[in-house]
Amino acid sequence: MDFLNNENFLLTTKTAQELYHDCAAGLPIIDWHCHLSARDIALNVPCGNLSQMWLAHDHYKWRAMRTLGVDEFYITGFADDWDKFEKWAACVPKLIGNPLYQWTHLELRRFFGIHESLSPETAASIYARANEQLAHLNVRDLMTQSNVKLVCTTDDPAHTLKWHKKLLHEFRLGTFGIRVLPAFRADNLIATYHTLKRELDEDEFESAANDLVESMRKRANAFDEMGCRAADFSSKSVYPSNKIVAALGDICREKDWVLEMHLSVLRNANSVLHHKIGRDVGGDIIAQMPDTLLNSLLTYFRNMGSNLPKTLIFSLNPTDNAALCALCGAFGDRLRQGSAWWFNDSYQGMRDQLTTYASMLPLTTFPGFVTDSRSFLSYPRHEYFRRIFCAFIGDMVEQGQYPNDKKALEEIVRAVCYESGVEFFGF
Amino acid sequence: MDFLNNENFLLTTKTAQELYHDCAAGLPIIDWHCHLSARDIALNVPCGNLSQMWLAHDHYKWRAMRTLGVDEFYITGFADDWDKFEKWAACVPKLIGNPLYQWTHLELRRFFGIHESLSPETAASIYARANEQLAHLNVRDLMTQSNVKLVCTTDDPAHTLKWHKKLLHEFRLGTFGIRVLPAFRADNLIATYHTLKRELDEDEFESAANDLVESMRKRANAFDEMGCRAADFSSKSVYPSNKIVAALGDICREKDWVLEMHLSVLRNANSVLHHKIGRDVGGDIIAQMPDTLLNSLLTYFRNMGSNLPKTLIFSLNPTDNAALCALCGAFGDRLRQGSAWWFNDSYQGMRDQLTTYASMLPLTTFPGFVTDSRSFLSYPRHEYFRRIFCAFIGDMVEQGQYPNDKKALEEIVRAVCYESGVEFFGF
Amino acid sequence: MDFLNNENFLLTTKTAQELYHDCAAGLPIIDWHCHLSARDIALNVPCGNLSQMWLAHDHYKWRAMRTLGVDEFYITGFADDWDKFEKWAACVPKLIGNPLYQWTHLELRRFFGIHESLSPETAASIYARANEQLAHLNVRDLMTQSNVKLVCTTDDPAHTLKWHKKLLHEFRLGTFGIRVLPAFRADNLIATYHTLKRELDEDEFESAANDLVESMRKRANAFDEMGCRAADFSSKSVYPSNKIVAALGDICREKDWVLEMHLSVLRNANSVLHHKIGRDVGGDIIAQMPDTLLNSLLTYFRNMGSNLPKTLIFSLNPTDNAALCALCGAFGDRLRQGSAWWFNDSYQGMRDQLTTYASMLPLTTFPGFVTDSRSFLSYPRHEYFRRIFCAFIGDMVEQGQYPNDKKALEEIVRAVCYESGVEFFGF
Repeated sequence: MDFLNNENFLLTTKTAQELYHDCAAGLPIIDWHCHLSARDIALNVPCGNLSQMWLAHDHYKWRAMRTLGVDEFYITGFADDWDKFEKWAACVPKLIGNPLYQWTHLELRRFFGIHESLSPETAASIYARANEQLAHLNVRDLMTQSNVKLVCTTDDPAHTLKWHKKLLHEFRLGTFGIRVLPAFRADNLIATYHTLKRELDEDEFESAANDLVESMRKRANAFDEMGCRAADFSSKSVYPSNKIVAALGDICREKDWVLEMHLSVLRNANSVLHHKIGRDVGGDIIAQMPDTLLNSLLTYFRNMGSNLPKTLIFSLNPTDNAALCALCGAFGDRLRQGSAWWFNDSYQGMRDQLTTYASMLPLTTFPGFVTDSRSFLSYPRHEYFRRIFCAFIGDMVEQGQYPNDKKALEEIVRAVCYESGVEFFGF
Repeated sequence: MDFLNNENFLLTTKTAQELYHDCAAGLPIIDWHCHLSARDIALNVPCGNLSQMWLAHDHYKWRAMRTLGVDEFYITGFADDWDKFEKWAACVPKLIGNPLYQWTHLELRRFFGIHESLSPETAASIYARANEQLAHLNVRDLMTQSNVKLVCTTDDPAHTLKWHKKLLHEFRLGTFGIRVLPAFRADNLIATYHTLKRELDEDEFESAANDLVESMRKRANAFDEMGCRAADFSSKSVYPSNKIVAALGDICREKDWVLEMHLSVLRNANSVLHHKIGRDVGGDIIAQMPDTLLNSLLTYFRNMGSNLPKTLIFSLNPTDNAALCALCGAFGDRLRQGSAWWFNDSYQGMRDQLTTYASMLPLTTFPGFVTDSRSFLSYPRHEYFRRIFCAFIGDMVEQGQYPNDKKALEEIVRAVCYESGVEFFGF
Repeated sequence: MDFLNNENFLLTTKTAQELYHDCAAGLPIIDWHCHLSARDIALNVPCGNLSQMWLAHDHYKWRAMRTLGVDEFYITGFADDWDKFEKWAACVPKLIGNPLYQWTHLELRRFFGIHESLSPETAASIYARANEQLAHLNVRDLMTQSNVKLVCTTDDPAHTLKWHKKLLHEFRLGTFGIRVLPAFRADNLIATYHTLKRELDEDEFESAANDLVESMRKRANAFDEMGCRAADFSSKSVYPSNKIVAALGDICREKDWVLEMHLSVLRNANSVLHHKIGRDVGGDIIAQMPDTLLNSLLTYFRNMGSNLPKTLIFSLNPTDNAALCALCGAFGDRLRQGSAWWFNDSYQGMRDQLTTYASMLPLTTFPGFVTDSRSFLSYPRHEYFRRIFCAFIGDMVEQGQYPNDKKALEEIVRAVCYESGVEFFGF
């Protein structure tokens, strides 16, 4: 099969091809967890050049470049845009089997109609052609072109939400048809709570913690007014004794928000890199603490009792998949596992998670793929997921595990690629 | 391939097809671990209707229904049989890739000759036709029809075994040809030991524990007289300091019983469900405690020394597979890993376990599949396993990993699907 | 496909076949971690008979024989060579899916041109024919025939290295063209450190530990003079507070050696076997301690700071693969994961590790396969790995995950099967 240029990329069965082209490909995109800048969307800023778009913030690419021995000067240093791009281009052919390879070429094809593979030989030509097009594009163009219908950004509770206000206004006026909702990212509040506990004496702490919870409630109301549907935090574990985490659950329950937990994340594990370059630069790893993680979740669920909000668990550790699916199965329709994510949204990582999910839970409840991305060029990852999903379904049909009933299969595809997320979040 | 109606369901290679049809399909069924009621077999009770047969006790189905948002009234509540069945039928098409989907349709086909897929459209007709047949069937009919030769039920040591006595009598008379053996389920004794230790002072406890061990020994003798070949317990861990567990090992060694351990099980994790509805209702999960589990096993093995009985370990956590296989490999012919079970007896769960087992151990020592089921309709799960097993073997032959030597391959199939279990248990 | 006799054994796609035959098959072998005896190479000792070659030291085979119920007399006991061989031959047909099965037959074909499968029927004839050839072979013949270019043995720091000196001399003279380097195995030093700490009082210990480190440095210099490129230790965990482990890192950094860590190994877990027969006899298992292991690695890395040497991590627990790959990705070009090893260098074990590695890291940095073997007959395991690797690449190309660009693909094959290891170790 011809790499990517072929419309049946990854679709190895006839069933998969039909399901993808007749059903999955046309579904709009709901990206309910990403890190796009609401400001950039509100101001509809121009796209930068391809080097800026790809390499200014993407620590996935930075990690690959470092492993391949590229000097930090060309990664996060002061090298100029073309030099960085050239270094990246030299890395790309070595990334066989890596989602970075697939994403890179899907983005070149879908946004710029460029069909060559990126390599040192093609780098200059590709850079010139993409930049020529990017010069005429603003960020909303990339979203519109990708058939995006709704995104949820990830926002600190302290944020004024003025950009979301502007975007809501535009949406109501009909001048910009994509819904951009804020999501309530509680990490800083949780960290502040831990700091207060460490620094204050018991009485002071009690009162400061109550104030903090009170402030959180006020900000949650402000987020709610902007249409927020989700709160979220990312950490190693759940910290069920942290009052912010508990209060966050109550807020979600009251407002019918979804509580997203991004767990088993160990940040800044490379301390040398952390001290030299800072946070969120590619030094993060997968935490391994299966027992502790499960116990903290169970304690939290027990504390919440029948007030458990709709909860969505992501674990960065793929060996947690089976246990998380079994956990979700025990908590009915309130608990869902999120899609394979970060280090795991590779071909095999997504396929393995789907397999475990289907084996243990009704697959139609799968809440769908999210990019979790900072980049306006990331939407083809939805295509990547959908192709993998259709291939997965096609294989089961070919083995005789499910009847070749097109209507039933298309319902499954629509549920997983679109409807199930809409329904769970109540968009 | 046409779903299920095709005789080559799951058999994707010619080798697999030949091995299944010429060898695996005709082997009798030994179900050496299940939860059937010896009373129901002894009295040969009539089958209930399909709703009762499927939905009265099956917490696998209850979990799927809850995840899909079905109200508890239709799950464990007072809804009538047809209403429950109708709700279940609406769930079924959503269960692609789930063993519940396969089992449901295999059972319809094998017992009732019904070839449609279950869905809201077909529910009424399927219900009527199956019930018409069930009205003339008693439980022994389902066992006989399934070519069952022997089952081991799971029995509390306190049980009088009067039904097993009746069944043994019938077996000797030749009026019922299927052997129904009790198995010695020690869970309540282990729990009692823990309670005594918590509640009594040290001296009282010492004497009470000795009494408990003594009672256990007497009951084990009674079980032995009924032909018992196995003791078993199910828990999170092994509790090597629990004297009941230690004494149970000694009993197994003396009587040449197999000691089955069903580990990494965390029961009633959903505390709300537990308080509302009770135990064994679908709130159980996979425990994750790799380090603790392995250490408790090693301590137990070290304590038993050369008196280690034949031991069969099941872990509910599939990530333990590799470590358990390596463990078995270190303990020669006394230690075996049990078949993928409960949340793991899916297509992929069974295939993955077989792959790991074959990679690390002689595959012919695999002790075979067990239903672990409460339902007389579950025997097609053996067919499901056997098809998966033959497909697995066929794939290896096609890749050139083993010669296409029919005689050798059939020996392997017979060992795994029948003989190895018979030999290990000494039936 | 005809088992093994077919030149396309395991190569299920055309791409795989071309890559293997045109590129991988001809690459020389660098076996940078093995347990061959430098003395035997230096003296070029004659090969023993096939029973001695296969069964005198191979605890992989011993485990399989024990699991299949063979009496210890025929495993490590005083049975004669033929009787042991006969017992082994009876086990072989039961080892479908096990690397022992593949290795056995690859070795028969590649070294002796014997194409039958080993079984009780063929045992006598195969034994006679292989021994006839072995009678004329010395160990260097097997190495030369296998296109070996360099091996690193595993040597206690106390070793005089006289055999390596002789081999270096011969290499310089050109009388033996294979480079045989020592590697600095620190296990005994680490154990001695633990013992000193336990036995001495604090002051004595301080001084004894310093002496030990000093001795280690001297021996490392001696190893360095013989061309040593690597230090290594094997244990459950990293023990970052052990000064020997810390000093070993410093030495590696100074000498630009690679520090290999073989982790998650629990030795002599079967205590009965250990007391009866000794160490390294097949009673070892996979340790399961994900949290502890990761934390000890992170502590070690933090302690080493920017002095972290080139480090190669092997974990015996395959469930660590994803976390280790993510860890490597956070530490740039100084940290690599080693190839699937010991219980994991099966078809599926190697394939799974390659898949995870490619998904998370640039695959071209994969440092290549090593036998870790005590046997001069083990080189076909490199062929086994290379076939699996080419099949893996071929499958990705067929799915459209990478263009069918022969030049680019051959670069990847050369990197993984040869060059990447050479470069990382600086051979």
